Amino acid sequence: MQILLTLAYDGTNYAGWQRQQNAVAVQEKVEDALAGIYSGGVTVHGASRTDAGVHALGQRASFFVPPNSDAKKIPLEKLPQVINGHLPQDIAVQAAQAVPDDFNPQFNAVRKTYIYNFYTSPLPSPLLARYNAHVPQALSLQDMQTAARAFVGEHDFAAFCATGSTVKTTTRIVYDCGVSEQADNIFALKITGNGFLYNMVRIITGTVIYAGMGKLPADGIPEIIAKKDRASAGKTMPPHGLLLCSVEY
Amino acid sequence: MQILLTLAYDGTNYAGWQRQQNAVAVQEKVEDALAGIYSGGVTVHGASRTDAGVHALGQRASFFVPPNSDAKKIPLEKLPQVINGHLPQDIAVQAAQAVPDDFNPQFNAVRKTYIYNFYTSPLPSPLLARYNAHVPQALSLQDMQTAARAFVGEHDFAAFCATGSTVKTTTRIVYDCGVSEQADNIFALKITGNGFLYNMVRIITGTVIYAGMGKLPADGIPEIIAKKDRASAGKTMPPHGLLLCSVEY
Repeated sequence: MQILLTLAYDGTNYAGWQRQQNAVAVQEKVEDALAGIYSGGVTVHGASRTDAGVHALGQRASFFVPPNSDAKKIPLEKLPQVINGHLPQDIAVQAAQAVPDDFNPQFNAVRKTYIYNFYTSPLPSPLLARYNAHVPQALSLQDMQTAARAFVGEHDFAAFCATGSTVKTTTRIVYDCGVSEQADNIFALKITGNGFLYNMVRIITGTVIYAGMGKLPADGIPEIIAKKDRASAGKTMPPHGLLLCSVEY
Repeated sequence: MQILLTLAYDGTNYAGWQRQQNAVAVQEKVEDALAGIYSGGVTVHGASRTDAGVHALGQRASFFVPPNSDAKKIPLEKLPQVINGHLPQDIAVQAAQAVPDDFNPQFNAVRKTYIYNFYTSPLPSPLLARYNAHVPQALSLQDMQTAARAFVGEHDFAAFCATGSTVKTTTRIVYDCGVSEQADNIFALKITGNGFLYNMVRIITGTVIYAGMGKLPADGIPEIIAKKDRASAGKTMPPHGLLLCSVEY
């Protein structure tokens, strides 16, 4: 039986989702927790390879229950709590469901939603610093909203992909992209798409923020997309403002 | 010249505001930062002795500028940024103002406002865990609001003071006390008073949460206040949900 987990984590102390040789990754912590439950241990497959420092509310990851394990009798509705008992406080299973054996959490994903959180103030705010990027300059919400809307649609997002990454195609569909002010000078860019290139959300946010600062014209996004040149887009925002909200199948 | 600072900090990694022998306190970090600016070093006096793990948005603390220090010429409006350059990321000066020599940040305070943040869900949420207490049970917002309102007024709050604390009087005035739902199942108890007893906000919140659970009648607060018995109130909530919002003079 294959089980699909919904996972939330604070990525601050992790080298990202994917297991690594010389750093602690979220995948490793989840596999360690499952090894404490299922004899023999299991491998988990994540939907998204979140980067070091990136947070998640709704990461998905699946594993096959070892057929000979006594723990295979744990009822699904109790499984999150049981696994959480083996996880550190900054990672928690939010839900567990059975999925068909041929389900693949990465390739079967049809939509993903990310939020990038940031705030503006001349001085940094320690209580926002963990989950929000700091932008010292004032920002125009209206200009950021104009810029964000221009990303919606099917586009070649080559200009919004970290240089050096190798993918078959840099075309993606963005279903929704908008900026809202959550509280005074605290902003969230929310974006939903069929998939994202490496650093794509962080570069899109950096470009939208440049529009908010007046460093780029708010209506200049289509031109930047058309150039397909990383150098014409804004800077890559830091990882700690990024949150993987949900993965849909 | 005496300078009054407004300070924000994430209290997670500190043993509270007050300098201690064997643990790192916020006061020590602020004094270390000032020692890096003013030759000879200075002592800071805080408005509130926040406990270990408690956060602050608007703590106040004052110090006297050493008369022979070259740094006394730093303009007030630049001082926050200069001090922040010597502080760790989880502490930041938000403002600086000159005050008379006879000003005392603790005794001159006339109103303080605290917020206690908590959320309910069967499973813990890692992204809320740093600044919000977790309550697994469902809570009635209406019952919590009824209970919270009953704290407003001048009362003997002996039932809401940690046992063993020695103060001249346990009478305090609460100007305002209410509970709001910030987002789905995320609550904030906001309380303003002329002063607070040791653990008073955390015990009041624990009592309001008991009312929200139905463990105590929502209209039973006046009776608990009248008993003046710590045992009749709710439990002391953990420090990480508590936030010192502001101190007024």
